[in-house]
Amino acid sequence: MDAAGAWDKLTAEIREVSLLSGAAASLAWDQQTYMPKGSGGLRGKQMSILSRLCHERAVAPQVGEWLDTLGAADLPEQRQVAIRKLRRDYDREVKLPGSLIERQALARTAGFEKWMEAKTAKDFSIFRPALEELLAISKEKAAAIDADRHPLQVLMEKYDPGVSIPALQSTFARLQEGLTALITGVGDAPARELGGHWPLEAQKALHTDVAAALGYDFATGRIDPAEHPFTISLGHGDTRITTHYYEDDLLAGLGGTVHETGHALYEQGLPSDLFGTGLDSAASFGLHESQSRFWENAIGRSLPFFEWLQPRLDARFPGNGKQAVDLYRAANRIQPGFIRVQADEVTYNLHVIVRVELELALFEGRLAVADLPDAWNEKYTKYLGITPPDDAVGVLQDVHWSSGAFAYFQSYTLGNLYAAAFLATLRQDLPDLDDRVRAGEFRPILDWLRDRVHRHGRTLDGPERVRAVVGERDYVEDLLSYLWSRHGALYGLTRPA
Amino acid sequence: MDAAGAWDKLTAEIREVSLLSGAAASLAWDQQTYMPKGSGGLRGKQMSILSRLCHERAVAPQVGEWLDTLGAADLPEQRQVAIRKLRRDYDREVKLPGSLIERQALARTAGFEKWMEAKTAKDFSIFRPALEELLAISKEKAAAIDADRHPLQVLMEKYDPGVSIPALQSTFARLQEGLTALITGVGDAPARELGGHWPLEAQKALHTDVAAALGYDFATGRIDPAEHPFTISLGHGDTRITTHYYEDDLLAGLGGTVHETGHALYEQGLPSDLFGTGLDSAASFGLHESQSRFWENAIGRSLPFFEWLQPRLDARFPGNGKQAVDLYRAANRIQPGFIRVQADEVTYNLHVIVRVELELALFEGRLAVADLPDAWNEKYTKYLGITPPDDAVGVLQDVHWSSGAFAYFQSYTLGNLYAAAFLATLRQDLPDLDDRVRAGEFRPILDWLRDRVHRHGRTLDGPERVRAVVGERDYVEDLLSYLWSRHGALYGLTRPA
Repeated sequence: MDAAGAWDKLTAEIREVSLLSGAAASLAWDQQTYMPKGSGGLRGKQMSILSRLCHERAVAPQVGEWLDTLGAADLPEQRQVAIRKLRRDYDREVKLPGSLIERQALARTAGFEKWMEAKTAKDFSIFRPALEELLAISKEKAAAIDADRHPLQVLMEKYDPGVSIPALQSTFARLQEGLTALITGVGDAPARELGGHWPLEAQKALHTDVAAALGYDFATGRIDPAEHPFTISLGHGDTRITTHYYEDDLLAGLGGTVHETGHALYEQGLPSDLFGTGLDSAASFGLHESQSRFWENAIGRSLPFFEWLQPRLDARFPGNGKQAVDLYRAANRIQPGFIRVQADEVTYNLHVIVRVELELALFEGRLAVADLPDAWNEKYTKYLGITPPDDAVGVLQDVHWSSGAFAYFQSYTLGNLYAAAFLATLRQDLPDLDDRVRAGEFRPILDWLRDRVHRHGRTLDGPERVRAVVGERDYVEDLLSYLWSRHGALYGLTRPA
Repeated sequence: MDAAGAWDKLTAEIREVSLLSGAAASLAWDQQTYMPKGSGGLRGKQMSILSRLCHERAVAPQVGEWLDTLGAADLPEQRQVAIRKLRRDYDREVKLPGSLIERQALARTAGFEKWMEAKTAKDFSIFRPALEELLAISKEKAAAIDADRHPLQVLMEKYDPGVSIPALQSTFARLQEGLTALITGVGDAPARELGGHWPLEAQKALHTDVAAALGYDFATGRIDPAEHPFTISLGHGDTRITTHYYEDDLLAGLGGTVHETGHALYEQGLPSDLFGTGLDSAASFGLHESQSRFWENAIGRSLPFFEWLQPRLDARFPGNGKQAVDLYRAANRIQPGFIRVQADEVTYNLHVIVRVELELALFEGRLAVADLPDAWNEKYTKYLGITPPDDAVGVLQDVHWSSGAFAYFQSYTLGNLYAAAFLATLRQDLPDLDDRVRAGEFRPILDWLRDRVHRHGRTLDGPERVRAVVGERDYVEDLLSYLWSRHGALYGLTRPA
């Protein structure tokens, strides 16, 4: 077969697998929104067969043959890039034996159940054997892909290709030091709660106002309530947000929606004309997270944003009496706590650093699963100055490990670092950024992100894309400088020289 | 391969195809409930690939080989039945060329668009060429399956196996005559509107009360609003109802929900232990419709039902002032109208008979598509005594033909006939039926249907199953006698001898 024929076959196959994968995404969305509580058994079987079909087709020998043909052919630049990325995916996936994938699927189901049980009982030992099995399987996967390299590095490349563990370690070490200085400065400043009672229907309307103003396209999207907020694309032309409303906490829900809107704007801006090439998806988890964090924190927790929001809040909640500055203060209180997903934008990164350090220790064999709770508590005491009273608010709080999802916590803090670098660069390109936000002119911001990030899909890996946008910058300094600028002013602190 | 091996392979394959087909059903449900308006293009592609996969796997040569092996083997009784049904499905589907299925898919998309356009413009001629193409394709499909038999008979066997066209014609002729006598007797009796204003949230709560009382399992089901009410199973363990609420018409929405609950109770009662044998599905469209009609009309429009409902209505709509008899009268007004889906339970069957007669004429070549509107209007004038003022409320009113869905209108009236025969038989087995209904004791009714109909899946075809339940009965007489008994009393009429 010639290169043109191989290209046509390969892209047609990728389109079909993407559509099947979108069908699976639709089932996943339904499972977390409207599926009847008792229908989980059936749903698990439906999703499992769809993922198996997608995996089987993605690693079929003929795909390898098309890639061989195309790898040896003289292709236009963009197609060369596509083939390199697809080859990388293929070489990785084809090495995973079906039996290991099935074992992992079973271990995940068992792991999730045991984790729930352990969390309810506040007793890590119930979850321990399941976690040991999940860790062993992950190590086997890493070894199957490349036995000669650091196992966590190998696994991480699925989520954040181009990120190296040594670089990550030195970045996180500097960041941790800088954050600790800020948090120590804040000390025991009193919490500034917003309070109030916020009827759900009006919140839904407000969230819709905000997401639409930021540029989210409701013609091909929607917002639904879910236990744990997430954004999901069912394919080009169907990207859905979920969120969680709290009657007694306006800002928690709103922050969540702005965060998810950031993810959704990225998905809606991906290059649908590259459908079938494998370049039409997000570049990395870290880059995805940079989009959500950018909107959630840099824009959505800024004073100009709350100045824009305030009259809209009044329209949805007449007589609520909150001023922009009340919202701003309440949205930016720094307070070390046990729970990552409730953390402020400063301490949040320490939660992530703890997990990444623990994963490193687990994968390098320096830490046994049985010793994980103690190690967890030590690190919280050291970095956040607080010691979890039990495992439920400690090592058992996050769902990720219960499904064997190792190697992607780093993406949360990478997202914050990238977002800070984007913000610094955007401020140069759009000096009146704050005025724009205050006036609700979000379009130039979105256009900037669309042009520099979204429309490129994954033609570059995450770190390369960021570099292409911001040039040579020190992201740790960007993030610390941004955090000091906002929180130093709020807490009356001066950054030590 | 031996018979045991073939059985294992075949049932495993059927289970997988069923799960994929359930995934497609999930996409279809989403499309009609929550899918963003602009996401239809993507959804069409996702659904099309899933149906192609299901079709390809269902007619794969190896399936034929397993069926050959099992057809020649000495199997237990139930497996023999399963293999006979599966062979029938296979022999039918395998004859349909993929190219014809694709042509039909395209013609359906085009047909639906042209139908919408024509309906808006009230001009059949816009839709005519598309309908001609759809009819031609359906004739080709029938010829591909069996060129020697009546094409509509061949197509009908997919929906109502075991129903013969000559028998259907004589049944419908007798029924039409009997219905016309009743409708003539009613004459121009004034319409008895219920009136009132019924807030939607309270309606939703009432519908939930009613569906739950009838036995619908909400742990594996739910009710959502949709433009056109339908019930859909995503597999054993997930059966969903949709309905439509009208603020100014309590009974239209409620009747719809009770109807859909009837369908859903059948689905929830199908033999999940036969999953993989092909016997775990409904026996026919007509039998499915008998379940919805039975609950909607025989039970849900009876005076005892409204006596049970009335205090529940008061609880949800305090001070509404309606008595059971008001509800009963309003739910049972007979009035010929143009629109099938708004018709009462008496005239409804005439709408169906018109369509079946027209389909027969089209497929027998006695009627050209171009002459369809005139033929339609003539039959409405003759059977219902009214002449549609335009095509939008005439020949263009139903969506079915726009997607080439010929050969299943008969199932609606077959459902009414079967339901009447079930009711007559149930009254013998449960002489205090009315008291049970009045007391809200619906369980014995459901148990009766579960035992005699639901749990058998499609071990028998629809007509055989009905016969097995009711014995030798005259269903036309059962239906007319039921209708005269209710409406004769309401309208002060005596049935002519």
